[in-house]
Amino acid sequence: MAQSEAVKEIVSDQTRVGWIGTGVMGQAMCGHILAAGFQVSVYNRTASKAQDLCSKGATMADSPLSVAQQSDVVFTIVGYPSDVREVMLGEKGILKGLRPGGIVVDMTTSQPSLARELSLAAKERSCESIDAPVSGGDKGAKSGTLAIMVGGEKNTFELLAPLFKCMGNATYMGPAGSGQSCKLANQVTIASTMIGLVEGMIYAQKAGLNVDTFLQAISGGAAGSKSLELYSGRIRNRDFDPGFYVNHFVKDLGIALEECRNMDLALPGLALAQQLYVSLKAHGEGALGTQALILALERLNNIKQ
Amino acid sequence: MAQSEAVKEIVSDQTRVGWIGTGVMGQAMCGHILAAGFQVSVYNRTASKAQDLCSKGATMADSPLSVAQQSDVVFTIVGYPSDVREVMLGEKGILKGLRPGGIVVDMTTSQPSLARELSLAAKERSCESIDAPVSGGDKGAKSGTLAIMVGGEKNTFELLAPLFKCMGNATYMGPAGSGQSCKLANQVTIASTMIGLVEGMIYAQKAGLNVDTFLQAISGGAAGSKSLELYSGRIRNRDFDPGFYVNHFVKDLGIALEECRNMDLALPGLALAQQLYVSLKAHGEGALGTQALILALERLNNIKQ
Repeated sequence: MAQSEAVKEIVSDQTRVGWIGTGVMGQAMCGHILAAGFQVSVYNRTASKAQDLCSKGATMADSPLSVAQQSDVVFTIVGYPSDVREVMLGEKGILKGLRPGGIVVDMTTSQPSLARELSLAAKERSCESIDAPVSGGDKGAKSGTLAIMVGGEKNTFELLAPLFKCMGNATYMGPAGSGQSCKLANQVTIASTMIGLVEGMIYAQKAGLNVDTFLQAISGGAAGSKSLELYSGRIRNRDFDPGFYVNHFVKDLGIALEECRNMDLALPGLALAQQLYVSLKAHGEGALGTQALILALERLNNIKQ
Repeated sequence: MAQSEAVKEIVSDQTRVGWIGTGVMGQAMCGHILAAGFQVSVYNRTASKAQDLCSKGATMADSPLSVAQQSDVVFTIVGYPSDVREVMLGEKGILKGLRPGGIVVDMTTSQPSLARELSLAAKERSCESIDAPVSGGDKGAKSGTLAIMVGGEKNTFELLAPLFKCMGNATYMGPAGSGQSCKLANQVTIASTMIGLVEGMIYAQKAGLNVDTFLQAISGGAAGSKSLELYSGRIRNRDFDPGFYVNHFVKDLGIALEECRNMDLALPGLALAQQLYVSLKAHGEGALGTQALILALERLNNIKQ
């Protein structure tokens, strides 16, 4: 389907931006949009978390609908696909209030199938919906260096360039849902890489090596990875504070497995990783960071630290 | 046990070096020792593969025993643990011919338990045995930039510094067997990282993404790894030429699993990776490079390229 006729204007300084979802990621990302001089209205289920943005010039709204009525482009970054569905399609949802020609950009990691559904629903109202999940964590959000993976109409993607530029580097992946597919494939890659990291560390420890010396010896070689760089030190310090929550990773891997089932795709490494991460939730560790995976392997092996 | 009394001399220009095993790796590594001006005698089961080193000044010997009789320090880099056992302890093995105070250095990736056994056998003859497997592949061997992971007496490790320096960067890991344990933990880390890479690529393809764009989008982020850097391009080009042979990786992962059994250590990611790599052997693909792992996942999913 072609881009909606009404979506034509180039994003300009006059563009009114809406922002829904002001968690750690959303706050930082929206902050960059504000700092670039755009007029912003915000909504968050827990209003207090949007207060900081309001003190920097954003206007508080009392529903996604109300945000949409004041905006040309609305960004969302919320929790689960069910939350995305609610803020987009609900009684007080964005699509009830967005003007013809408006654009909605979902940056939540969510289902490709939902992204396609939203794209169709938006077009029915002469709007456009774009899926644009991100990678890079709170650090990338704060520094404005997120990797943004974008699905939807290419022309619309191009219109959004000045806004994406505030938050990081956007790559156009293809039609609606492609941004979500790219992010999920990214999570699939990370999932087994994390298993490799923690299993290597556990093997080294059990074999009686100095684990720090082991990590030094291998980090520059073929076993090196961004996961090792980001997490091996924190694991050694037993620092399980979240860069990225176990709960969110379990959600992402669950969506990826659901998509796999729909595509008739068997990925045994992904299935194993998801099960190990679910075991962390069974121990009440969903609010730890993903490096806590080592706890699952330690329990499996009756290793006490 | 303390270092054997007889092993005292600092390695000097006068040190006579023996080299056993002149495959792709061994030839390049021994070549650096020769180039540094050391006197070298060589033995290889297939003598023709040692010819090139002889044309550069090495002396051909007709057995490991004969090499040992002409050497102060003997290096070995052969195939399987059974080959190591044969060249070390066999009828015409190194320990039958090495003078008291001589050093033998096994650079094969092999069993930690065998390394400990060889260390004891060497000490009984007032010699020292060092385990020093390497990482970095043929490229690292050629450029003299291998990571060398060393187990055995620390003093002996220090004596060997001028020789290790010819081949790469050596790290002392601990008592006999520690070099092997470090290398195996390295392979454990790589095993699941490879699963992550090929599963991510297959997911992206199946979801209809341009896989090259996907790889570009993720390579700088949290999913980045040396495996991605080394192998994603070759996989995209369907180039399965060996940097590192599937056969050798299956051997290494098999030894790691055997050690895990001995240590009562359960590593499900390692077990999965080993099984997928064994499936490549079932298809006659043992002489391909480890990036051929994607073939196993493609077959599992009835994906034809």
